[in-house]
Amino acid sequence: MAEKITSRSDNYSQWYIDIILQAKLADYSPVKGCMVIRPRGYAIWEKIQAVLDGMFKDTGHVNAYFPLLIPESFLKKEAEHIEGFSPELAVVTHAGGELLEEPLILRPTSETIIWSMYKRWIQSYRDLPILINQWANVLRWEKRTRLFLRTTEFLWQEGHTAHETKEEALAETLKMLGVYKQFAEEYMALPVLAGIKSESEKFAGAVDTYAIEAMMQDKKALQAGTSHFLGQNFAKAFDVTFQTRNGSLEPVWASSWGVSTRLVGALIMAHSDDNGLVLPPRLAPTEVVVIPIYKNENKTDVLNYAGGIHEKLKARFRTVFDDDDQNSPGWKFTEWEMLGVPVRVEIGPKDMANGNVMLVRRDTREKKSVKAEQAEAVIQDLLTDIHRNLYNKALKFRNDNTSDIASYKDFTDFFEKDSGFAVAAWCGSRECEAKVKEETKATIRIVPETDPSTLTKGCVVCGSKAQALPVFAKSY
Amino acid sequence: MAEKITSRSDNYSQWYIDIILQAKLADYSPVKGCMVIRPRGYAIWEKIQAVLDGMFKDTGHVNAYFPLLIPESFLKKEAEHIEGFSPELAVVTHAGGELLEEPLILRPTSETIIWSMYKRWIQSYRDLPILINQWANVLRWEKRTRLFLRTTEFLWQEGHTAHETKEEALAETLKMLGVYKQFAEEYMALPVLAGIKSESEKFAGAVDTYAIEAMMQDKKALQAGTSHFLGQNFAKAFDVTFQTRNGSLEPVWASSWGVSTRLVGALIMAHSDDNGLVLPPRLAPTEVVVIPIYKNENKTDVLNYAGGIHEKLKARFRTVFDDDDQNSPGWKFTEWEMLGVPVRVEIGPKDMANGNVMLVRRDTREKKSVKAEQAEAVIQDLLTDIHRNLYNKALKFRNDNTSDIASYKDFTDFFEKDSGFAVAAWCGSRECEAKVKEETKATIRIVPETDPSTLTKGCVVCGSKAQALPVFAKSY
Repeated sequence: MAEKITSRSDNYSQWYIDIILQAKLADYSPVKGCMVIRPRGYAIWEKIQAVLDGMFKDTGHVNAYFPLLIPESFLKKEAEHIEGFSPELAVVTHAGGELLEEPLILRPTSETIIWSMYKRWIQSYRDLPILINQWANVLRWEKRTRLFLRTTEFLWQEGHTAHETKEEALAETLKMLGVYKQFAEEYMALPVLAGIKSESEKFAGAVDTYAIEAMMQDKKALQAGTSHFLGQNFAKAFDVTFQTRNGSLEPVWASSWGVSTRLVGALIMAHSDDNGLVLPPRLAPTEVVVIPIYKNENKTDVLNYAGGIHEKLKARFRTVFDDDDQNSPGWKFTEWEMLGVPVRVEIGPKDMANGNVMLVRRDTREKKSVKAEQAEAVIQDLLTDIHRNLYNKALKFRNDNTSDIASYKDFTDFFEKDSGFAVAAWCGSRECEAKVKEETKATIRIVPETDPSTLTKGCVVCGSKAQALPVFAKSY
Repeated sequence: MAEKITSRSDNYSQWYIDIILQAKLADYSPVKGCMVIRPRGYAIWEKIQAVLDGMFKDTGHVNAYFPLLIPESFLKKEAEHIEGFSPELAVVTHAGGELLEEPLILRPTSETIIWSMYKRWIQSYRDLPILINQWANVLRWEKRTRLFLRTTEFLWQEGHTAHETKEEALAETLKMLGVYKQFAEEYMALPVLAGIKSESEKFAGAVDTYAIEAMMQDKKALQAGTSHFLGQNFAKAFDVTFQTRNGSLEPVWASSWGVSTRLVGALIMAHSDDNGLVLPPRLAPTEVVVIPIYKNENKTDVLNYAGGIHEKLKARFRTVFDDDDQNSPGWKFTEWEMLGVPVRVEIGPKDMANGNVMLVRRDTREKKSVKAEQAEAVIQDLLTDIHRNLYNKALKFRNDNTSDIASYKDFTDFFEKDSGFAVAAWCGSRECEAKVKEETKATIRIVPETDPSTLTKGCVVCGSKAQALPVFAKSY
């Protein structure tokens, strides 16, 4: 904790980078756009992985692993897919000392390689559904990168499912959108909007893309997860048909869905403050840090007392006992605050004399002295309350920065000044959507399901009959 | 289970492939040398990962993630390293639609990229030790590949540690060798020899390589894990020095160690039989399968009875209840046997009438009828016993096929005929080692620590004074 963290009001982007580098969550790598996820950052990702993997398995999914390298010709089989991804591809041309006959692409996503295998594995409705997920690294050669939020290589999970019917594939798409929303809210303490994307914002190769969108503290939107209804697009591109229950042959229906290490960036941006990281308790690698405060004359006594309390807490929480002699208690307080540990337990000679411990919560920095024997129960409540508080604070912030906007003048003003989420009527045309993007840099984040006949106002851009009431925002 | 599995005696290689494809553990991919790990194979890898990851954390390690892509120049910094790996490298030359200024290598292992980061992170002894592990995919462009055992892309973990002293780095190297040995024996039911490699068999860039070696059912050796003492080689190549406790600057000491998806291949080859897969219970994704046997007239009763028993077993074991109406009980027995599930529970109307269940163990195929209320306890014992039996069987097989050999005539005969592990005196020269490889295809698998003065016989090749008593074998 040598350097000070830039404040959010001074420079939000620098604040974000300062936290990541100083908390040692990640570091820049020698390869442009690629990051190194350091142990403290990776520990958060491991928590995310463990919870999500459990949720996927509870909903009937299994894991598998498909090759990193994809023949170039595969990507070209689905026209929209290659068009969307071709500017971002990294290409292996040589291997084993020889020029390859066909260049191999580092997967930017795995629909093509996976559907080339599904062709082998699916003959009949009896082979369906296939509910496979993969944890993997993917590569997209991005021009502008940002630690965790957008990197050339990133880690993610990608679900790829195959179904008999359109209804089943669509139900799966929505089920996984729901899983993502639940995860964001219950584990990341992050309120999200869930809904469908506009045509121009959807995944290259999907029929429809659904997403969860969160508001960051600079009021920009962050797409935190996507779930795609792929229709029969990849089945047709890879000629994957199955014998139906009534004996006919039909192309297989599909979904795909994914979240990535970007979620770590979302956590940081949504909850942290000018003192450093603030971690939602359920994903914090360390929930509780115990810091003994002593002088030479009472060192043994305090360490024994604090150590005993730590042993009890350790049985219930993910804890660290910081008895490092190199640093002062004050230095440690600042350090552990910067690292975002939800609850700090301070134990000094006075606490010891009174049979107390001092509890400090990271989110509000409130202190509270409690009897040592109550510490466990109070900490459990604190962790629950910190989660709730982080969620409510983020929700209030989003609500406070979401505006219903009727006129295009107000709309452009909104995105010139304060910004945030703008809810505005839209005629559904690509032209109006493009004009907004061009003139305000805002895009449609999601389009909630609405009956157009209930819409009273005209399109915020062109004034003609509105088809939907999307949420517009600038985004990462 | 449409096709028959080739018997081991007919064609061992084909037997191995038949099991993998029929049990759907893996499949060939459209990219030469790359495999697809299917859900049933990946579930075994997940069990392996979970156990090993716990063992790594218990020994103080943390996980991190470093980039897949390594600048070509990095690999060239350690002379032996690039010499060893250059024939196997896959190279990215284009990305984002442009020719890269410097080609990027797909990591064949991560020492170079990691030590380029350690240079930034290590200044003083206070920054040491670093005990980092990474779960990742790596690529080595192999000419001859074999499912799980040697593939162009494979999944592995690679530990990369940095230390103040030679002693510490060496102790870490040996500690992780011990972890691998313990894992092989206690989870894979696989007896292994652990020891040092000869100079010509060591990792390119290591001072010393240690390995665990197991005997497969065709009597060949399989290297199942390696732990390298890297000395200061990579620290020197990447100029990573640290301020010591007495204020001087010294290059950092290092170890690296890894196991891969090859372990899944080792499991299959070590324990399976002509009826299919045999899984060691502690790594079996499904420990117990319950198969109800019924006719139309007693279907409901049997399903209720068997379902109730299954519910109880499910609370304690990883179970499957196979009540699929499409297949006959006989078909299911064969299928689940082929899939290697350690214990099968058969429950028919007669069992129901007597309050019994029939237990069948996969390893010996022995059947035993027990009272339903004893099933849990008996199955627990069975699982323990199956583990023990698999281990003992593999150990006996290795012992039966290990010979002390004194003359070169006997030595060449041994590798021409039956083969196995040959323990023979060696003078320590590269020439004798090379001659053995050339003339018998056997290599030195490990060199146990021995006091040369206790060796009575001369080198099995040249007859001169022996320095060690290595284990020779043909290998995968």
